[in-house]
Amino acid sequence: MKPDAIAFARRFDGVSGSAIREIFKMIAKPGMISFAGGNPALSALPDQTAAEMARKVLEENGKAILQYGATEGYPPLLESLKSYVQAQLGCEIPAVLPVTGSTQAMDLLCKALINPGDVILLENPSFLGNMQCMHLYEARLVPVESDENGLMPAKLEEAIQKYHPKMLYTIPTFQNPTGRTLALERREPIARLAARYGMVVAEDDPYRDLRYTGEPLPSIKSFDKEGWVVFLGSFSKIISPGLRVGYMAGDPLILRKCTIGKQSSDVHTANLTQAIVDQFLRRGLLPEHISSICASYKAQMDAMLDELASFPEGTRYTRPEGGLFIWAELPAGLDAKELLDKAVERHVAYVPGTHFFVDGGHENTLRLNFSASTLEQIHQGITTLRGLVEESIR
Amino acid sequence: MKPDAIAFARRFDGVSGSAIREIFKMIAKPGMISFAGGNPALSALPDQTAAEMARKVLEENGKAILQYGATEGYPPLLESLKSYVQAQLGCEIPAVLPVTGSTQAMDLLCKALINPGDVILLENPSFLGNMQCMHLYEARLVPVESDENGLMPAKLEEAIQKYHPKMLYTIPTFQNPTGRTLALERREPIARLAARYGMVVAEDDPYRDLRYTGEPLPSIKSFDKEGWVVFLGSFSKIISPGLRVGYMAGDPLILRKCTIGKQSSDVHTANLTQAIVDQFLRRGLLPEHISSICASYKAQMDAMLDELASFPEGTRYTRPEGGLFIWAELPAGLDAKELLDKAVERHVAYVPGTHFFVDGGHENTLRLNFSASTLEQIHQGITTLRGLVEESIR
Repeated sequence: MKPDAIAFARRFDGVSGSAIREIFKMIAKPGMISFAGGNPALSALPDQTAAEMARKVLEENGKAILQYGATEGYPPLLESLKSYVQAQLGCEIPAVLPVTGSTQAMDLLCKALINPGDVILLENPSFLGNMQCMHLYEARLVPVESDENGLMPAKLEEAIQKYHPKMLYTIPTFQNPTGRTLALERREPIARLAARYGMVVAEDDPYRDLRYTGEPLPSIKSFDKEGWVVFLGSFSKIISPGLRVGYMAGDPLILRKCTIGKQSSDVHTANLTQAIVDQFLRRGLLPEHISSICASYKAQMDAMLDELASFPEGTRYTRPEGGLFIWAELPAGLDAKELLDKAVERHVAYVPGTHFFVDGGHENTLRLNFSASTLEQIHQGITTLRGLVEESIR
Repeated sequence: MKPDAIAFARRFDGVSGSAIREIFKMIAKPGMISFAGGNPALSALPDQTAAEMARKVLEENGKAILQYGATEGYPPLLESLKSYVQAQLGCEIPAVLPVTGSTQAMDLLCKALINPGDVILLENPSFLGNMQCMHLYEARLVPVESDENGLMPAKLEEAIQKYHPKMLYTIPTFQNPTGRTLALERREPIARLAARYGMVVAEDDPYRDLRYTGEPLPSIKSFDKEGWVVFLGSFSKIISPGLRVGYMAGDPLILRKCTIGKQSSDVHTANLTQAIVDQFLRRGLLPEHISSICASYKAQMDAMLDELASFPEGTRYTRPEGGLFIWAELPAGLDAKELLDKAVERHVAYVPGTHFFVDGGHENTLRLNFSASTLEQIHQGITTLRGLVEESIR
């Protein structure tokens, strides 16, 4: 018998892999201008600093770093991370767990909480990577209505009463894929609803430091008196995604369950990558590094918005205050998936918006990333896209 | 409402966390002699080499290493790993997937294959970390009879006919916890049974290079004509467990499903730790490093066996040809779990054998690790244990 006779687990029914990861492979040819990923600019990746740090920590504490570590985290990072997170969120954090990228945080939270059929509420569109995670736990994904100020608390309460969800998954700041930010006055009500109805909130906030205009907003977590909000943090956008270090912060009981789940996911996150992040925190390098990233990304976003302004009538797009993405809606009738094939022929890529919706549809939408391209590439790539759109509506 | 009202997912019913990881915390006090873990000796951890490598790869290829990588693996490692694995296993390997420690390989294989209630056959006792993984996928664990030469193919076939398992989980070489090795003449029959009945074999072989006497045996994988055997490999015991790099090798269809599963587990394994392992392979450092480790571990194992020889009558223990563990059975009536409390008071630790059995029991057994202790510590620690056993049977 050959393995093509294998019956794979039911959790894979309907899951065919991340559209982004597939597009990545399609566009891995030289000369491609990619607005597809959520990659930091290469210039934002601190390679020489990391080289010096890696050597230092291995020379000085290499035996402990190369030995098995605790599932609970590398002790020096645990220490620096706790003060960092408390300062970031402006509130007491009873427990923190370093994880192998914040993707693992979502995986562990689903592992801890989700039985097949359990409802997870979420924005629609939302981050497709974590939607795939929810599908693999056989959750039922139920969208909650949002507007340009994010999730609407009244609609959220209706959905809670109707669906008795186990969890709300939300990206409150510079949302992926829309770039929208949850308004200040909606944040406390969400924390209150969570406690009233006994619903865990996964507050996924990897872009919060990438703010180019406007004032920083308090996290939903900072309004959480009872412990229902679990904050998912990441160093992928502000240090390096290749290191795979993120964290979850919140209630010790929930984090304990996630820790037990992590024992059989990967035992612990690599000590070396945790030690490098610890060095960044301990040396206080992040504020300056982040300002320099933000200066470039703002210029890149502005360049992209400028180019979008001359798209044909009927095109709409978000104007985010930060983050990595602009969300665009092409004139009705256009199909961003069909357009992608032609765009890739002309060496430009993006992610069709349909992949970010719980039930697909919305074929005329697309997500555009500006962080991974130079100003030159943005002008050239968006000009190419504009040409394609103009051709298509003729 | 407080989060202590949370209903966690059913997969955690009866799962309270790894006994080993709990014992680790209990014994994290100075002066403790630990035979509990499966840790490499500190002297076996190449900290200065790793420091040089980490700096070099980050200086030379740091942008790619710090950027998002492919779920399929860091390209240079994929290349060196494939030749390494083929040389190791002595057969063509159609596909290989680097993972975040071989613990993740087991997790991904269960994710790909196991529906709640599916049967996994395994040795009894077996590795408790991976048993916890199987429990979290709500598999039904069914032991297959083994003797001092490992799994018995006739018993395996009976179990296959009776239980229609999805998977066999086996540690064929210097098994954890018993130290036993699957005899040569049993290896091909197991591969044949897998293909005849359509059952995946997870061949978990992290200790195969740690051989102190006798001849290396071909892997079960090398007898696999159809692709049902997935080989789980690890660099934890021969380079470093703290780096969290392992791999799975086998059928492309199965590995593809695991890759999709990995997208939402951790996106990809950290590029930096993959790059360090690549350097070890590429520079051909492993053979010499492994001989030097083996020379020490053999002396440590021999010292432990010497000390065990003078234990009270009724004590039995395995005499492995390699690996990290000796498995001991104390005189009937003794309880290794009760004894552990007294042992820890006297600064000696081990893992009670009961934790490694599917249904517990076997209270008079224990697992002893010799790799993480010096000869001095082995003499002193086992002498302490002997004293305790002698007191207990008086």
